[in-house]
Amino acid sequence: MTTVHPGSRRPLVIVLSGPSGVGKDATIAKIREIGVRFHYVVTTTTRERRPGEVDGVDYYFLKKKDFQKKIAQDEFLEYAEVYSNFYGVPKNEVRQALDRGEDVIIKVDVQGAATLKKKIPDAVFIFLLTPSMGDLIDRIKARNADSEIAVKARMLKAEDELKCLPLFDYCVVNIKDDLDRTAEAVKGIIRTEKHRVKPRVIKI
Amino acid sequence: MTTVHPGSRRPLVIVLSGPSGVGKDATIAKIREIGVRFHYVVTTTTRERRPGEVDGVDYYFLKKKDFQKKIAQDEFLEYAEVYSNFYGVPKNEVRQALDRGEDVIIKVDVQGAATLKKKIPDAVFIFLLTPSMGDLIDRIKARNADSEIAVKARMLKAEDELKCLPLFDYCVVNIKDDLDRTAEAVKGIIRTEKHRVKPRVIKI
Repeated sequence: MTTVHPGSRRPLVIVLSGPSGVGKDATIAKIREIGVRFHYVVTTTTRERRPGEVDGVDYYFLKKKDFQKKIAQDEFLEYAEVYSNFYGVPKNEVRQALDRGEDVIIKVDVQGAATLKKKIPDAVFIFLLTPSMGDLIDRIKARNADSEIAVKARMLKAEDELKCLPLFDYCVVNIKDDLDRTAEAVKGIIRTEKHRVKPRVIKI
Repeated sequence: MTTVHPGSRRPLVIVLSGPSGVGKDATIAKIREIGVRFHYVVTTTTRERRPGEVDGVDYYFLKKKDFQKKIAQDEFLEYAEVYSNFYGVPKNEVRQALDRGEDVIIKVDVQGAATLKKKIPDAVFIFLLTPSMGDLIDRIKARNADSEIAVKARMLKAEDELKCLPLFDYCVVNIKDDLDRTAEAVKGIIRTEKHRVKPRVIKI
């Protein structure tokens, strides 16, 4: 009997990823707006704070040597260097939110999601696709391509981003004009995950 | 690249199950009402047709020898004998609906769902729970039972039905006064399954 439980009380870790510019931030803002409650994990960075940015809201701003100390202490779930600035997902913040029983949303690029898949395999991995990626996938499936060359060119462009797709649980095509629909889909995924019989086991 | 696709175009087989009286029929009627489109599989039976029942709508009514011929021809996904009447899920009807691209909902008792799990493991299995079963599971999880004996009595009663729960993908607690919520949950599960990256492979 101990394996039998709906898991509705366990908080989830949701990893929202996808190519740059696909609309991850807008989606997160919109699902908050339509009533989804979650803890959004603020990224730690070593880059300069820009005017208007608030420490602890936009980012946690750290000096490089402090960031490297945290790396050494294994305090990031995932980190990366982009244009000689570091960005990291603070492990402790995720852990604390889960301890409070809150679902956690982590926004990362596709490469970061691949790293997180190794660290927290039982998180819910959602890939936001551009409509053109969605079209591409449909076309591959339907095998009725307009022209072999055109399809190949598009495939090459999207291939790098798409090759991580199998690591994900769900993919949602984000049509920019229809953010409501994207947000409803993500909301539906989160709600549905609460009905899973087999619990997702999160160890951080 | 061939393994990469959102699977949105593939129809699903949804097996809706749960203990007798939990509200399976009412849930199916309600999700139809709130706009979910699907093919509902009509059960074949050998029992007498009752006044008002329509062949092909309520059931397919068959004579026992014709039913047994269909058993011999492997024409049922699942069948059972209940009070010397036979009930079966016609394989051909499921196959034809899927070929038309329609999602299929099959309503069966828990034992029938266990059989279907072997026949079509990649169907979406939803277990409708009574609130008392849900309470029970919560209590087992929380381990703050009011009294050991009371809990054990309830556990024994529900154990037989609940022991099949791990075969299911999702469970939904159906509160009779809040059928809308149950139906929304089932609708959400069906919508969310369309966003799965890993396709469900249905072979019938």
